[in-house]
Amino acid sequence: MAASTLTSRTLASLAAKVAPISVSSQLKFSDLEMYQQPKDMRRKKMDLGKLKCGQQFADHMFECYWNDEHGWMKPRISPLHNLNLHPAAKVFHYGQELFEGLKAYRGVDGRIRLFRPQLNINRLLSSADRVGLPVFNGGEFLKCLVQLLKVDSEWVPNFAKGSLYIRPTFLGIEPRLGIGRSMDAVLYIICSPAEGSFSTTAKPVHLFADPKFVRAWPGGTGDKKLGCNYTSTLMVQREAERLGLHQVLWLFGPDHRITEAGASNIFMLMKDDVGNVELITPPLNGIILPGINRQSILDLTRDWNEFKVSEREVTMQELQERLAKGQLLEMFGCGTASAISPIERIVYKKDGRLIDLRLPTTQQSNSLYKRIFDFFVDVQLGRKKHEWAVEVD
Amino acid sequence: MAASTLTSRTLASLAAKVAPISVSSQLKFSDLEMYQQPKDMRRKKMDLGKLKCGQQFADHMFECYWNDEHGWMKPRISPLHNLNLHPAAKVFHYGQELFEGLKAYRGVDGRIRLFRPQLNINRLLSSADRVGLPVFNGGEFLKCLVQLLKVDSEWVPNFAKGSLYIRPTFLGIEPRLGIGRSMDAVLYIICSPAEGSFSTTAKPVHLFADPKFVRAWPGGTGDKKLGCNYTSTLMVQREAERLGLHQVLWLFGPDHRITEAGASNIFMLMKDDVGNVELITPPLNGIILPGINRQSILDLTRDWNEFKVSEREVTMQELQERLAKGQLLEMFGCGTASAISPIERIVYKKDGRLIDLRLPTTQQSNSLYKRIFDFFVDVQLGRKKHEWAVEVD
Repeated sequence: MAASTLTSRTLASLAAKVAPISVSSQLKFSDLEMYQQPKDMRRKKMDLGKLKCGQQFADHMFECYWNDEHGWMKPRISPLHNLNLHPAAKVFHYGQELFEGLKAYRGVDGRIRLFRPQLNINRLLSSADRVGLPVFNGGEFLKCLVQLLKVDSEWVPNFAKGSLYIRPTFLGIEPRLGIGRSMDAVLYIICSPAEGSFSTTAKPVHLFADPKFVRAWPGGTGDKKLGCNYTSTLMVQREAERLGLHQVLWLFGPDHRITEAGASNIFMLMKDDVGNVELITPPLNGIILPGINRQSILDLTRDWNEFKVSEREVTMQELQERLAKGQLLEMFGCGTASAISPIERIVYKKDGRLIDLRLPTTQQSNSLYKRIFDFFVDVQLGRKKHEWAVEVD
Repeated sequence: MAASTLTSRTLASLAAKVAPISVSSQLKFSDLEMYQQPKDMRRKKMDLGKLKCGQQFADHMFECYWNDEHGWMKPRISPLHNLNLHPAAKVFHYGQELFEGLKAYRGVDGRIRLFRPQLNINRLLSSADRVGLPVFNGGEFLKCLVQLLKVDSEWVPNFAKGSLYIRPTFLGIEPRLGIGRSMDAVLYIICSPAEGSFSTTAKPVHLFADPKFVRAWPGGTGDKKLGCNYTSTLMVQREAERLGLHQVLWLFGPDHRITEAGASNIFMLMKDDVGNVELITPPLNGIILPGINRQSILDLTRDWNEFKVSEREVTMQELQERLAKGQLLEMFGCGTASAISPIERIVYKKDGRLIDLRLPTTQQSNSLYKRIFDFFVDVQLGRKKHEWAVEVD
């Protein structure tokens, strides 16, 4: 299969934006092997009334194996299938694993689009480097991803119903006990249709902020998208749910700095004593995931140039003071799964006491989070032409 | 198979020591199903001249599947085989995985022994609880583990050659994208013959101490044996090797407290200005793995009652001062893989400068680390009768 049959001009220019990294044996789109499920053997079309994100999967998957000695094998698209791994595979013991999450949107014109996929791929490469997995040419990988979407384009829901969640995953699979980087790896992509309405705004969330739970720390891996960052959060999430709250607001340090919420980056819109407005998100100091939506909100609002846009620390102390003075206007999370989530309430555990903070996020007129949400949706659904949207077909 | 056919008196009393935990559907030894490899189909006997720990595996494995709705399935011993998992299995994405490491020793009398296995099993249960995997009756699990050793007893090397490393592993395998605990799990055990001479003492190690690398953090998972704790160490280990050193000495906090070395706990033998001797290991403050050898060294030396035994913090500052005054006598790591490793050298990166510290550990007469090493080996090989040694056959 020649690369040229797939590469639209949009894709070619995109591939150039994703920095190629020098490796001896490249992952190449032109090597892609296709084993398509016969049409009559494909699973029943998804029931559009009951999309269960993360539990239903598209018919095909992409995969490519790597070995330290031989480099990358030929990449392949084939029917979704189980992985067959030795019980001593590194991934089962030392968490040598990482992933990405992005979505394919079917626009109002019926066409399928991705949202800044090159940022996901660059982050994937950065995560791989952190755990000693091999890097590869991101542009070639993007072409393979796009080809997978073409094969399973029927799985991208109509824009009124949702989107197709795309999960690139990268595992160290050498069957060898002993701490050390893996000499074998598999890079794969699976897709799952996700519910999500684009006509109304996201549901408001309630957060539990307990400084005893720490998601990431300096010298750790909180700025990469590694499986290990999520392990410790599984049980903490349960604590939040016990209190009837949705997610955890992750704090850091003795001054209880705000870092992330659940698996989302976080933004606060505040004004100062003389009424100057400032949009704030925590800086990329090593414990914050460099989110694609985070970057896009910064890019967008800086382009708008209507208020000050800052990457700086905010403590719970400052948040409480601003809230008390009526200077906290909005607070919202952003991530691929939920896009933009307005935050309505924070239950803050301080010195053993629970402080219930009610935020006015959803009560503002012409609220910022809705403007951003609408902008993203307009780009994703093709209502607004923008270079962030990459057309797949 | 009736439990009584396997339960020796030693095992029965041990099973009682491992606290049973109330669950609705128990993992039961009496349910164990056996599918043995026919003798003539077993792999060639291991080449005793070339034991490659972690790369060769015994003929059989133990496994037991669990489901949130149905509880534990029947446990099974069968020929070693690959795991067949959905690419969306939680373990591949959110690091829901944990393990244990212990060894089976063939004694001078030819019998096979374990070393305090109930401590490993209790730690396994504690790790499982931390990541939302189900707990089970540790005594029943121990009986299954012992049965696996009986089936593969030929894989336990002669004491002059090494031991059989045993790796219980527990994975969340529900095929569902989305952060949250797994509703399906598999608990398994694989075994790998490990080289290791018991006639000479362990090789001295050289450590790299750079405060910029942080293994664990309060509020994290450093006190559990989870895969996620090892992910971030893979690349740091490479930094040590670049400097010609063996392992990393993990420091913590602005005062550079000593925590662990590589994947080992750490001990220091020091004397004060008036000559009083103190054996020190960092306390179990949430960022230290509660090692079995660590506990055994504390138990043993407290029983000896020859010097003060402390669980307290030691900073790099104190270590350097004591070393300069000739008051640092010995420093050694302990872990299942290496038993006791004397530390000869630390390269300490402070304010961008490398400080080369040479330790007198291996130059002491009647050194403590050797006495402990010899005691452990005598118990493990059955030269000394002790309740810590559990006879398997």
